Amino acid sequence: MDAEGKQGCREWLRRVIFQSDTRAGQAYDIVLLVVIALSVLTVMLESVEEISGPRRGLFTVLEWVFTGLFTLEYAVRLAVVDRPGRYAGSFLGVIDLVSILPAWLELVLPGSRFLTVIRVLRLMRMFRVLRMAQYLGEASLLLNALGASRRKILIFFTAVLTLVLVEGTAVYVLENGENPGFRNIPQAIYWAIVTITTVGYGDVAPVTVGGKIMASFIMLTGFAIIAVPTGIVTSEIGRELQRTRVRRRCGQCGWEDHDVRARYCHQCGIGLE
Amino acid sequence: MDAEGKQGCREWLRRVIFQSDTRAGQAYDIVLLVVIALSVLTVMLESVEEISGPRRGLFTVLEWVFTGLFTLEYAVRLAVVDRPGRYAGSFLGVIDLVSILPAWLELVLPGSRFLTVIRVLRLMRMFRVLRMAQYLGEASLLLNALGASRRKILIFFTAVLTLVLVEGTAVYVLENGENPGFRNIPQAIYWAIVTITTVGYGDVAPVTVGGKIMASFIMLTGFAIIAVPTGIVTSEIGRELQRTRVRRRCGQCGWEDHDVRARYCHQCGIGLE
Amino acid sequence: MDAEGKQGCREWLRRVIFQSDTRAGQAYDIVLLVVIALSVLTVMLESVEEISGPRRGLFTVLEWVFTGLFTLEYAVRLAVVDRPGRYAGSFLGVIDLVSILPAWLELVLPGSRFLTVIRVLRLMRMFRVLRMAQYLGEASLLLNALGASRRKILIFFTAVLTLVLVEGTAVYVLENGENPGFRNIPQAIYWAIVTITTVGYGDVAPVTVGGKIMASFIMLTGFAIIAVPTGIVTSEIGRELQRTRVRRRCGQCGWEDHDVRARYCHQCGIGLE
Amino acid sequence: MDAEGKQGCREWLRRVIFQSDTRAGQAYDIVLLVVIALSVLTVMLESVEEISGPRRGLFTVLEWVFTGLFTLEYAVRLAVVDRPGRYAGSFLGVIDLVSILPAWLELVLPGSRFLTVIRVLRLMRMFRVLRMAQYLGEASLLLNALGASRRKILIFFTAVLTLVLVEGTAVYVLENGENPGFRNIPQAIYWAIVTITTVGYGDVAPVTVGGKIMASFIMLTGFAIIAVPTGIVTSEIGRELQRTRVRRRCGQCGWEDHDVRARYCHQCGIGLE
Repeated sequence: MDAEGKQGCREWLRRVIFQSDTRAGQAYDIVLLVVIALSVLTVMLESVEEISGPRRGLFTVLEWVFTGLFTLEYAVRLAVVDRPGRYAGSFLGVIDLVSILPAWLELVLPGSRFLTVIRVLRLMRMFRVLRMAQYLGEASLLLNALGASRRKILIFFTAVLTLVLVEGTAVYVLENGENPGFRNIPQAIYWAIVTITTVGYGDVAPVTVGGKIMASFIMLTGFAIIAVPTGIVTSEIGRELQRTRVRRRCGQCGWEDHDVRARYCHQCGIGLE
Repeated sequence: MDAEGKQGCREWLRRVIFQSDTRAGQAYDIVLLVVIALSVLTVMLESVEEISGPRRGLFTVLEWVFTGLFTLEYAVRLAVVDRPGRYAGSFLGVIDLVSILPAWLELVLPGSRFLTVIRVLRLMRMFRVLRMAQYLGEASLLLNALGASRRKILIFFTAVLTLVLVEGTAVYVLENGENPGFRNIPQAIYWAIVTITTVGYGDVAPVTVGGKIMASFIMLTGFAIIAVPTGIVTSEIGRELQRTRVRRRCGQCGWEDHDVRARYCHQCGIGLE
Repeated sequence: MDAEGKQGCREWLRRVIFQSDTRAGQAYDIVLLVVIALSVLTVMLESVEEISGPRRGLFTVLEWVFTGLFTLEYAVRLAVVDRPGRYAGSFLGVIDLVSILPAWLELVLPGSRFLTVIRVLRLMRMFRVLRMAQYLGEASLLLNALGASRRKILIFFTAVLTLVLVEGTAVYVLENGENPGFRNIPQAIYWAIVTITTVGYGDVAPVTVGGKIMASFIMLTGFAIIAVPTGIVTSEIGRELQRTRVRRRCGQCGWEDHDVRARYCHQCGIGLE
Repeated sequence: MDAEGKQGCREWLRRVIFQSDTRAGQAYDIVLLVVIALSVLTVMLESVEEISGPRRGLFTVLEWVFTGLFTLEYAVRLAVVDRPGRYAGSFLGVIDLVSILPAWLELVLPGSRFLTVIRVLRLMRMFRVLRMAQYLGEASLLLNALGASRRKILIFFTAVLTLVLVEGTAVYVLENGENPGFRNIPQAIYWAIVTITTVGYGDVAPVTVGGKIMASFIMLTGFAIIAVPTGIVTSEIGRELQRTRVRRRCGQCGWEDHDVRARYCHQCGIGLE
């Protein structure tokens, strides 16, 4: 094989692996998704003693087959892409790397192999196979809305953590000694988080009258508090939706607020281009 | 009875059963709703040993009476409707069919008779009896809003499932061996779903310090996450409400969806009165 | 006392009891609120064995003193108001009546006296004492928003009840026999309601693999479902807020969408009256 | 040191402690935040018997070191500020004071030292170190939104408390005698709060059929109710966002809050450029 053929082969591999505009590229993406899903399923089943116990050997083999495949694929990706450094540092590149690391780490640190479940993140390539553009548009709208609210959400979480710390300690002072679930402040904070998020396992619950009154107060507070992040995100999503709505400007009167489907300006009746 | 009389009788039956614009049609709808409600109640009471135990025979008879009635009704519907295939394939037609299937299936597969509770879906005919138009309008607004958000909600659920898988496995690695509730990854994922949706049964709860810290993190994440679907649905309902609010109809082209402040139809450029 | 004096006295009593625009009327309202609060507190404390046990007599006396007072007050209200029938049928009139009924019912039906706690509803008169107008405005905004959403909420609850019935039965079929918490369908429906509302007591929880998978599905559904009423109410409150926002119309150009504080039309610069 | 030098030194201290526009001021703020975080961590670890048990002496020393530092700092703040009374009465001044009180109170009232965790509130100074302006803008938007909804939220909480009282008593009447968790009305109210906020510990749960039906009703009510505060806060945040979105400043009168489409200042009628 001469240099040109090698270059052509590399180019072809690059298109198949990185893009999905060819038949082979689409087939590759789908096969990859299936293999990823199978590897995640394998990790999950391996953790079920009843299933993996009698066939430990099979699971070990499967694990190494998947790890081998993904390691090979990562190497090929690095080899065929034009700027390997940029791919390795990209979001998907980092995910591809962390998907194979835990299995190799297992050689040194037993028990870490279950973390290979992180391979599930590679399933995000799925959106490439689906009619990508539309989904990416919707996803970026959601991410934009979350991004626009990040400072508000940070403030909100600071407030929640402060509240949880103060309220947890208050209930600790009330329950300490009477309730094994409130043996120390970190445990009381754990309880306060379980309560304020309305999860409420019930593994820890106040038993004294004072503790119950305090807890009632915390629950009602949490009730109002859950409204805040919802309010923030809803408002930002509404704003994003509005921003993406078309703002067609009339050439004559300059009115900008037209329906997407409008053909005539509704203020001066002139045709919109 | 001659052919014409038969045809007339069929036509009369069709109006009574399928429409509610006649006295008889309305009476039929109401009787049907009562019978459906009674049949669902029968299934529910049959499952209560204290009630059905001493009168097993009665319940068997009732069950077959209802099944007979509904099977007969389904047959008549098929017979009198103009295009039986279209009815059988329609939403309500499929519900009518699945309402009688479990009872017949019981002859082959014991235990499946309780699934006849699915008959409750037939109660949706209720909206026909109520001032239908208005309720259907409201229902379609809600369905439109959900439909418009379906892609965003799909993206959201993919993100939640990925999160639940990764977080569940992380807590599994931390709790495994110390906590019988985290014996394998599927159980840990079940726990993560119970936690992130803020249901929090408490049948499984972390016991190690690492597990509790990780759980606190998951709960606070869930707190922010619950805001996202609410934000999506709220924004879409708001949009739907706005879209339906202004219905100024153009006298020339009939286009109805104009801005409140519009002075000219934006489809044909004719002035709105 | 002559007829005119009697009439004047009746008029004076009517103003004191029914209105709060006089000194005496305000004092009366405040005393009434305190007495109502005390009577509710009495019922609550009476139920605490540790407190009421040693002083049963005192509580019986208190109970009859409060009942006597409220019965007398109800009689006076009926006597002095211009149209007794209209008061008796009004919202507050009905609450006044049901506040005294349980105590009298106790004579016939022991145990019903605790229902006198319903007197707490009379505390709603509180809003009369506070700067009434503003609070009533806000309250009516909330009630309007809920009223405008009532049909959507009815549809939503029908959908939730259907879902709960079908999902409860499905988990019953899976768990029945293995789990004492799913002994019959009504219990399974109770569990489904506890789950879909994200309350999650944990007194009943699925134990089989199939039940847990089904439960996970129900929880994730509930996650999306909780978004719907929030979306409805939020949109309606937003609409109400917008409706109550001032729409000052410019006399010259007719533009209507001005800020509350605007003094000049922002389209033609003419002063707004 | 002469009087002027003393004055200069006081001025320099004031700038370092109260402002963060100098190098030293910023360094001071950061050191202060670290010390506060360490002192909160110390209180939390002190409550963990396993950690503080063997080194009780160390924790006592640390506690007094921190208390000494904070007391000294409070005294210096009072000394260098221009109007000590105003600082002492300000929000941050009160927090600074309550951060040192519990430690001194400990001398009189053993056990109260854990309340020193309230020092965590001092971490709010953090927003001063971060790019303050932006965060304060966002925080004030959230506070404005909450402030604008305060009357609606008050009405809402009055309604919730009434509901919780009536529903708790109703379940008490049904469960009393059969369920140790419903021994008296205050306990039943605690359960109703746990339920309506969807926390659902499960430490108390209805066991009778009537109680379960009533509880189902309460849960479904709670489902609708959680929508109300969210709706209120979301609408107000949306309104705040809209208000802050358009900030076109009038060149003449300086009014900043104009509609996007405004062409004339609505305060002085002058054309906006």
